[in-house]
Amino acid sequence: METTLREMTLAYREIRGHTEKLVSNLNTEDFMVQAATHVSPTKWHLAHTTWFFEKFILEAYQSGYRHFNNEFNYLFNSYYETVGEPYPQSQRGAITRPTVAETLSYRKYVDEQLLDLLEKVEGKDAEKINQLVEIGLHHEQQHQELILMDVKYNFSFNPLYPAFQERKDQPSSEAPELHFHDIEGGLVEVGHDGNGFAFDNEGPRHKTYLERYRLANRPVTNGEFLEFMNDNGYQTSHYWLSDGWQKVNEEKWSHPQYWVKQDGEWYIFTLAGLKKLDLHAPVVHVSFYEADAYARWAGKRLPTEQEWEYAMEDQEIEGNFMENGSYHPNAYYDGGMFDKAFGETWEWTQSPYVPYPRNKPLDGSLGEYNAKFMANQMVLKGGSCVTPRSHTRLTYRNFFYPDMKWQFSGFRLADNG
Amino acid sequence: METTLREMTLAYREIRGHTEKLVSNLNTEDFMVQAATHVSPTKWHLAHTTWFFEKFILEAYQSGYRHFNNEFNYLFNSYYETVGEPYPQSQRGAITRPTVAETLSYRKYVDEQLLDLLEKVEGKDAEKINQLVEIGLHHEQQHQELILMDVKYNFSFNPLYPAFQERKDQPSSEAPELHFHDIEGGLVEVGHDGNGFAFDNEGPRHKTYLERYRLANRPVTNGEFLEFMNDNGYQTSHYWLSDGWQKVNEEKWSHPQYWVKQDGEWYIFTLAGLKKLDLHAPVVHVSFYEADAYARWAGKRLPTEQEWEYAMEDQEIEGNFMENGSYHPNAYYDGGMFDKAFGETWEWTQSPYVPYPRNKPLDGSLGEYNAKFMANQMVLKGGSCVTPRSHTRLTYRNFFYPDMKWQFSGFRLADNG
Amino acid sequence: METTLREMTLAYREIRGHTEKLVSNLNTEDFMVQAATHVSPTKWHLAHTTWFFEKFILEAYQSGYRHFNNEFNYLFNSYYETVGEPYPQSQRGAITRPTVAETLSYRKYVDEQLLDLLEKVEGKDAEKINQLVEIGLHHEQQHQELILMDVKYNFSFNPLYPAFQERKDQPSSEAPELHFHDIEGGLVEVGHDGNGFAFDNEGPRHKTYLERYRLANRPVTNGEFLEFMNDNGYQTSHYWLSDGWQKVNEEKWSHPQYWVKQDGEWYIFTLAGLKKLDLHAPVVHVSFYEADAYARWAGKRLPTEQEWEYAMEDQEIEGNFMENGSYHPNAYYDGGMFDKAFGETWEWTQSPYVPYPRNKPLDGSLGEYNAKFMANQMVLKGGSCVTPRSHTRLTYRNFFYPDMKWQFSGFRLADNG
Amino acid sequence: METTLREMTLAYREIRGHTEKLVSNLNTEDFMVQAATHVSPTKWHLAHTTWFFEKFILEAYQSGYRHFNNEFNYLFNSYYETVGEPYPQSQRGAITRPTVAETLSYRKYVDEQLLDLLEKVEGKDAEKINQLVEIGLHHEQQHQELILMDVKYNFSFNPLYPAFQERKDQPSSEAPELHFHDIEGGLVEVGHDGNGFAFDNEGPRHKTYLERYRLANRPVTNGEFLEFMNDNGYQTSHYWLSDGWQKVNEEKWSHPQYWVKQDGEWYIFTLAGLKKLDLHAPVVHVSFYEADAYARWAGKRLPTEQEWEYAMEDQEIEGNFMENGSYHPNAYYDGGMFDKAFGETWEWTQSPYVPYPRNKPLDGSLGEYNAKFMANQMVLKGGSCVTPRSHTRLTYRNFFYPDMKWQFSGFRLADNG
Repeated sequence: METTLREMTLAYREIRGHTEKLVSNLNTEDFMVQAATHVSPTKWHLAHTTWFFEKFILEAYQSGYRHFNNEFNYLFNSYYETVGEPYPQSQRGAITRPTVAETLSYRKYVDEQLLDLLEKVEGKDAEKINQLVEIGLHHEQQHQELILMDVKYNFSFNPLYPAFQERKDQPSSEAPELHFHDIEGGLVEVGHDGNGFAFDNEGPRHKTYLERYRLANRPVTNGEFLEFMNDNGYQTSHYWLSDGWQKVNEEKWSHPQYWVKQDGEWYIFTLAGLKKLDLHAPVVHVSFYEADAYARWAGKRLPTEQEWEYAMEDQEIEGNFMENGSYHPNAYYDGGMFDKAFGETWEWTQSPYVPYPRNKPLDGSLGEYNAKFMANQMVLKGGSCVTPRSHTRLTYRNFFYPDMKWQFSGFRLADNG
Repeated sequence: METTLREMTLAYREIRGHTEKLVSNLNTEDFMVQAATHVSPTKWHLAHTTWFFEKFILEAYQSGYRHFNNEFNYLFNSYYETVGEPYPQSQRGAITRPTVAETLSYRKYVDEQLLDLLEKVEGKDAEKINQLVEIGLHHEQQHQELILMDVKYNFSFNPLYPAFQERKDQPSSEAPELHFHDIEGGLVEVGHDGNGFAFDNEGPRHKTYLERYRLANRPVTNGEFLEFMNDNGYQTSHYWLSDGWQKVNEEKWSHPQYWVKQDGEWYIFTLAGLKKLDLHAPVVHVSFYEADAYARWAGKRLPTEQEWEYAMEDQEIEGNFMENGSYHPNAYYDGGMFDKAFGETWEWTQSPYVPYPRNKPLDGSLGEYNAKFMANQMVLKGGSCVTPRSHTRLTYRNFFYPDMKWQFSGFRLADNG
Repeated sequence: METTLREMTLAYREIRGHTEKLVSNLNTEDFMVQAATHVSPTKWHLAHTTWFFEKFILEAYQSGYRHFNNEFNYLFNSYYETVGEPYPQSQRGAITRPTVAETLSYRKYVDEQLLDLLEKVEGKDAEKINQLVEIGLHHEQQHQELILMDVKYNFSFNPLYPAFQERKDQPSSEAPELHFHDIEGGLVEVGHDGNGFAFDNEGPRHKTYLERYRLANRPVTNGEFLEFMNDNGYQTSHYWLSDGWQKVNEEKWSHPQYWVKQDGEWYIFTLAGLKKLDLHAPVVHVSFYEADAYARWAGKRLPTEQEWEYAMEDQEIEGNFMENGSYHPNAYYDGGMFDKAFGETWEWTQSPYVPYPRNKPLDGSLGEYNAKFMANQMVLKGGSCVTPRSHTRLTYRNFFYPDMKWQFSGFRLADNG
Repeated sequence: METTLREMTLAYREIRGHTEKLVSNLNTEDFMVQAATHVSPTKWHLAHTTWFFEKFILEAYQSGYRHFNNEFNYLFNSYYETVGEPYPQSQRGAITRPTVAETLSYRKYVDEQLLDLLEKVEGKDAEKINQLVEIGLHHEQQHQELILMDVKYNFSFNPLYPAFQERKDQPSSEAPELHFHDIEGGLVEVGHDGNGFAFDNEGPRHKTYLERYRLANRPVTNGEFLEFMNDNGYQTSHYWLSDGWQKVNEEKWSHPQYWVKQDGEWYIFTLAGLKKLDLHAPVVHVSFYEADAYARWAGKRLPTEQEWEYAMEDQEIEGNFMENGSYHPNAYYDGGMFDKAFGETWEWTQSPYVPYPRNKPLDGSLGEYNAKFMANQMVLKGGSCVTPRSHTRLTYRNFFYPDMKWQFSGFRLADNG
């Protein structure tokens, strides 16, 4: 076991506790809202992450385990078809009960049971349980990010522009001039090597051949994206993929999500309310289609996930993460080779989300975790200002549909060497 | 003035207070849910009825009136296009703020202002204000009914079958045998004569010619409706209007809304949770299409609104209303000529909702209250177990689209004399 | 028998022949198109009217009748659920076979069989067959009108503006000044009295009470409708029924169907191609919602169907009908009391299409002809420039959904006396 | 110039002529049908391929060129946004004019102009024109395949099961036992090297690294696919990608497209009408989702496009192609290493359709030909029984959305070595 049970117990307390800290300044009302099918109420996130531990660990390993409420298996299953039909995603906002208080009791109940199990388990089950708890905690962290994404989305429907928190001061500087670093390429290796935790979609580590390429020193900024907009970027078909152009027209896209123009000035809705747009900060809340169209307009392209991963191999995983508490990208640049490689904003790549060579999903129902989504989605790398620092990795493969914009997603340009 | 300002003040306190009493056993979570576009969150009902008094009375008559919050004019306008674009109905459930507590403060603020105005007003404004408050209170009562309808609808999406209240004991008896009373008809009068309050859609009183007809002594019961179901009523096209048959197939209708079959027994979801279906109680939560199809199956028809109104002229307005607190139709029959004419269940008629001859909507924005809905809807008469007793009248014209089922709607058969 | 079998034979030859004459200048390609679900390909009309005679007469009365093709019973059934599941309406344009030539052979085959039956039938069947043929011929005439409506609709999708025919010269004059005739009203009679042919929805003749009212001397003209448009009629919510306002916004209505603005001038697409709009001709191709909104703008209202019928009792059924061959309303006014009462354009009424008192649909499957459509549609009276003259009557009740515009529908104003 | 102008003239005559031969046994009616948005009427294919030569060659290079009809530029543009707004794809079936005869005249007119141009061109334009005609002819061949696919689709809506042609005898044998060939992999090259014609999406030739893998000797057969069906393949969620499972449920998939069960036997609708399913022939008309689900059920996977291309490098391009005239996969196996590598059926790969490294789309509007579709689609390799033999290549990258089934698409299994 790479992490002992004791360490896992500490991690469990810390990460589960952080989720509750995260939502501690929400009103009861805020826990309930689901403004669109693809987001979930905060209450649901609290319950679903708990269900995960109950379903995949307590049911199997805690002898004589009694469910907090038998119906929760149906209510809080997200998409695991193999453990029973899930409650319809579009109606998560209609679940009035359990109340928020009852949901917190449910968390407490499962936490006690889980910690009890961790304390007493030994022998052959110990390793398996340790692995499952580790997955459960990474799952919990994903939902920490989702809670922040979804609260932002839900709040954005309110013309009162409610603030989730007060604005924290952020470090700031001018964005350094854009330039590109040459990378030799060749037959390289990417993917997770199995040492330490990784999701099943990150491995195995494998060879891949890269042509020589160049990668930008930093992500595209709000100011740069504004130039694209002012140059009729959203009105010019030939910058766009066909499916993207259809979205532009159907949904009348004309700017990144959450941008608001008031009296000739651009603002952006943040978790601290409506704020003036910082032209030096990385652009976020753009879809893959918008990132790709911008790149075409700029005469560049997006990197592949392999190009991104190989280039960033030596970058430290530090930057503006969830723990920072600002929940918004800042305009501080440290002048490193690849500024903001991690944290700040997820970066779209041009790589569809498909299995790596010889990839093998987890056995059983947890095989549904990642594998079944390997169609029609695109890979993003790096991590954002709402991602827990310990949750991301060089090999992490985040994925979203190419028209989605509510996640903290920006991009970095590449071209051929 | 038919009601003095003093009486109006009392009515205001009583009716506004009743709304708050009605929702007093809801959890904060319950106030937030909107499970479909055609229902609204309870919080929204509380705010919208308050906005009504603010918009149509305080803004116009309270000198120097300061709004509680300027954005509420947009947020809580339902459908009055002439006073500014309303917030989209489908997103009422996404409004996290104001909170429930703030909404109650908003109510308190407007109540104080309104009562202050009622106390000090005199001269020519008094009569106008009195009329507007009267409309506002009837509007409030409509939303009391809507709150109960919508809470039931929203709760029904929860597999835990939460109960809004404990079940109250209800009087009960066997449904008397169905028979039909002959009514002579001729050149009769219907509609409101202008004495006392009525909505603008109820008048003027006017002549109409009725052929001889017969009207049933009581509404159709659950037991009778079950016979229709068991006789393949939902599978036989020729009982159905074409638009209804399309709904049956598209939405896979096979029983009234809220009916649930468990282990071969029929139950119904009520505001007191899931209960065994009482075969002697009137059927409710059927659409016009279902009522019409049943009538065709039974070799009968629905009455017109004029036939219903003329026949019920001498019936007293008493029965199972909201004040009764059961919020569910009971199986008690008093053996009167037209059992359950008022209260218990709204009764579908075969009359489309169109203006009466020489009908004139209210002036100004309140003309939007009723008139603009006079297309594609059907008239219901009588009042239901969630209708305030003082809110209904012989001439009251309720209206819903013919495919709607979440209201407490049943029907009574008629035929030609 | 009101019409002898010999007369019926002549009528059969004449009306069936007219259908074929009507389509004689279409190309094979033109027969195939179905540009939207609510219209049908001409080929389908030719086959369906033939199926009607086969299904309801030959199958029942021609002994040893052999079908031309057994599959046609499925392919060419429109909506008679009681004689088998109909082929989906939306896919009528996908039926490549039978070809047009085979369809004409099908017509010829059925015509020969039917004429043979008419020649030899005697005894008790004769009257029944006579009635059924009469219905079949009125059905054929309805489809003559539909063919012209649908060809116009289908052709309108072609930017080449193809012409179904050359433009015929039309008589023309200035529209007389609008004025209103007083009508006393009282307890009057409307509906068909059973003498001569009528559809089952027109009777029985019955008493109805009319308040005093006034009816316009002529329909509203294109020029008048243009004033409504120029006065922001399509942009002003309070002229519109709520459901109509939704359509205006969803489908971006800003003028009657087929109107085209080129270089600042209004044109209208007609069956003779694109023509300059004649401001004195009656407006056509407006929906009920548009007619109703115009009336509200003008401070008037639409008449009820009873008001219309009673007022027109003494008008002769003459005017611009299908036989005239212009297939477009003209601007000729004869200065009569109610100019253009019949022919020219169907006139929307404010009456929903519901059964008359004591109305009884036909027995059997033909009971589906009219009765099952009695929901959500509005009655139109009079007949249009594409209606066969012998097909319309004072008591005729045409009906369309309130948002439909492809029929030749205009309106005449009324108000209270 | 790789092909001289003389050779190009011959190729032009031959390929354009073949298109007309292909449709020579269609009735005029058959040319008109568009049963769904993603298919086109045959008439439109005839006109659009002609427009392609007119737009991209004659307009630019034939001096004083006069258009056959100026409106055709709008009517017959498929999706080239940069040369003007295209006519809506969903309404191609509504274009009654030009007629089929006029469309053939349009073809003749453009053919004469084009051949005239080919005869007289010289100097620097010659090479460019030669290249454009070559693309135009490959484009024409793609539409030959589309005509056959679309006629089949359109005919399938007719319960009469019309036949496009008589059934040709097909060679037949038992499918050889399934086995897998080991392939070493390593750093290999794929993609087009620029010698001879290729689409812009096929190059440049580039290195890619393949792990050792195994590829099946032949495609999956109808009989094998039936086993998947009989083993509840369509009812078992864990074989399916999430997006695929949604399609299965929404569209109620339970078998490949065109399969029909009659009296307990499986038939398939072919261009020769309804035929008994040959269990030894390759399965066709399955979507990517179905191919992928089958592979998971079988414990295998689909190959990547690189694996497929590398393995097939030495296979001859021969087999059952369009020229064979059977338009349906046969059950003849020659016992080669990779039976049916080309022809018979396109084979789904697990590779999303994305640009190759350093890929560069064509300049100008023809850059829209392929590049803008590089999102959400999957690559297929090989060619089918309706693909012209000279049109396909080892490096050819066909692409369809993963839910599409109307193309002749099957699959071949792979696994890890």
